[in-house]
Amino acid sequence: MKKEFSVTPWHVTGKVNYEKLIKEFGTQSVSVSLISKVKNPHSLLRRGLYFSHREFDLWLKDAQAGRKVSILTGRGPSEKMHLGHLIPFLLAKSLQESYNCPVYIPISEDEKFFVKKNLSFKEAQEFADDNVLDLIALGFKQGKTFIAKDFSYLPVYRNSAKIAKLISYSTAKAIFGLKPENNIGWTFYPAVQAFHILWPQFAEGPHKTLVPVGIDQDPFIRLTRDIATHSTLNFQKPSAIHSKFLPSLTGQAKMSSSEQENSLIYLSDSAEEVKKKINKYAFSGGKDTIEQHRKHGGNPDIDISFLYLKYLFEQDDKKLEKIHNDYKSGKLLTSELKNILIDKINAFLKEHIKRREDAKKHVDKFILE
Amino acid sequence: MKKEFSVTPWHVTGKVNYEKLIKEFGTQSVSVSLISKVKNPHSLLRRGLYFSHREFDLWLKDAQAGRKVSILTGRGPSEKMHLGHLIPFLLAKSLQESYNCPVYIPISEDEKFFVKKNLSFKEAQEFADDNVLDLIALGFKQGKTFIAKDFSYLPVYRNSAKIAKLISYSTAKAIFGLKPENNIGWTFYPAVQAFHILWPQFAEGPHKTLVPVGIDQDPFIRLTRDIATHSTLNFQKPSAIHSKFLPSLTGQAKMSSSEQENSLIYLSDSAEEVKKKINKYAFSGGKDTIEQHRKHGGNPDIDISFLYLKYLFEQDDKKLEKIHNDYKSGKLLTSELKNILIDKINAFLKEHIKRREDAKKHVDKFILE
Repeated sequence: MKKEFSVTPWHVTGKVNYEKLIKEFGTQSVSVSLISKVKNPHSLLRRGLYFSHREFDLWLKDAQAGRKVSILTGRGPSEKMHLGHLIPFLLAKSLQESYNCPVYIPISEDEKFFVKKNLSFKEAQEFADDNVLDLIALGFKQGKTFIAKDFSYLPVYRNSAKIAKLISYSTAKAIFGLKPENNIGWTFYPAVQAFHILWPQFAEGPHKTLVPVGIDQDPFIRLTRDIATHSTLNFQKPSAIHSKFLPSLTGQAKMSSSEQENSLIYLSDSAEEVKKKINKYAFSGGKDTIEQHRKHGGNPDIDISFLYLKYLFEQDDKKLEKIHNDYKSGKLLTSELKNILIDKINAFLKEHIKRREDAKKHVDKFILE
Repeated sequence: MKKEFSVTPWHVTGKVNYEKLIKEFGTQSVSVSLISKVKNPHSLLRRGLYFSHREFDLWLKDAQAGRKVSILTGRGPSEKMHLGHLIPFLLAKSLQESYNCPVYIPISEDEKFFVKKNLSFKEAQEFADDNVLDLIALGFKQGKTFIAKDFSYLPVYRNSAKIAKLISYSTAKAIFGLKPENNIGWTFYPAVQAFHILWPQFAEGPHKTLVPVGIDQDPFIRLTRDIATHSTLNFQKPSAIHSKFLPSLTGQAKMSSSEQENSLIYLSDSAEEVKKKINKYAFSGGKDTIEQHRKHGGNPDIDISFLYLKYLFEQDDKKLEKIHNDYKSGKLLTSELKNILIDKINAFLKEHIKRREDAKKHVDKFILE
């Protein structure tokens, strides 16, 4: 029987059943009581995009007790960044503000180079440099945020080697579905990814690290938790918190470059492009005619514009509730809802582009070499 | 039918038939006319320990025409160095003197760490640092000799990655007999080794490189020649010259740490140890009694002491011929032959230990970091 959906680090297909994934992967649900313990929880956390975790509670306990904790979340640079890419970084930044902890951001241009047949070495490096500016522009704390590119940071190979010795080819093959025709860089990469996850502990000694990450990346978390405590490493098992996929404008499970450019909002999009994309492509939960919408109301829970406001752009719970109720009752039209989102995104991007320009002056304060 | 012998980069078994290897590997014999073209050829070359090659003639042509050429030969540091380890370096040094060309020496502590189950990361690094002193002590030209340790030289991972993308797991498996239980560092290592062989061209652009190397390492040469001209690299195919294995004192095909310490002369051995080992363990081609030896003579061609003089310690052809003839006629006794060798080795080691001490002051002039 064909599976109704499939989630691996390199492919997501079908309509993802997240409750099933929690059982299949053996993770824990993010509960209301857990969220209530977090200081100033981000909307992504409060409103359910982060739905699953591994020992986030233990990380939180150490953070609240003032013990050393850190956050780790990386970026594989194969294209310009879009809104979907921000999910882990926005949570990381929010938790850094709440707990004043270091954030480590490894840039895995090696992974993208190995996995993407037509991505040249030069392109992978150019995307890495480009993406780093977007990440710095998000406003991470200088002096507490460490970015390193895999091809430019000496500890990557030596520490990945320590991990590689603990992973047999057959184990890597089983976990990641490696194929004989995959290149031997791809085959090696699980060790590099495990190094990333353990990087804060390589740098600062054993402590609790939290990895905010898309649920599709959980196989890396499992592998790393398995080896973290090996006698040659002696680290603590990393904690993780998993997000669902932010749907694309057209409503796909996971945004990616393989879909149409039109169904993604890039951080480099102009105000005009944003307006055009939202108006033309954002999947609507409204009715077919204004008359019907006024009469029966829309469905905000499947409306992409509403979901983007919910997860990313409207932090105020009361304002969001009003939008939700007005849309449901038919008081708020689809075009009006879209305009709210367009204004929010464009305000964000206008600021982002300024901060990105400013980031160019500060790269060396974030990048380790 | 079981093969009578087997030669792979990680195992040599049986009595090696070198003529068969030339056919099996598809290499060329080192001919007298080829050697006659070399300026001041080393005894290792003149007397047949280097028996096979791939386009050494083309390298020589470029060297003699004053075009850019280089030499590349590496060291996998899993133990203290012994005489057998010197074979490629002595030829490299001799050719550097004849043609004033750069010599690149990559130190592959990663390979040894991946392949040797019980070798710790720390030990691999300690052997690397130890072996580097022995290599510098051999007298390579400062400013024209470049040593880099794989875990301490940033270009290793990035350039190996470019190569890794060109090698599928199934190709690496076929060439090197990789097994599913081998770790993913080992699986990746062929890319690092290919980088080593291409290192001079990565550093100085396309030109002819010569790799003096034990015949067991030829699979790496073949693989690298296959990918060197790929459009993402655009290098020249490296040339190679292959040596037979220097027999151990007891007459084994290849010296290695897995054999008894007693059958190897380490560069750190004291004069007393050398004397004891040669007298006690060096396989003799002499007769059982002095009377028989005087009457029938010995067989120098299977006598380890004679072979060590021939390949390593007696550069003077006339002196060597006299030793050969005197031993064959019975004029020279085994104990006398051994004493000649003991004196030669101890003179060499006495000087070596001094130069090694001196090398500690100059490491940073050879090591790239």
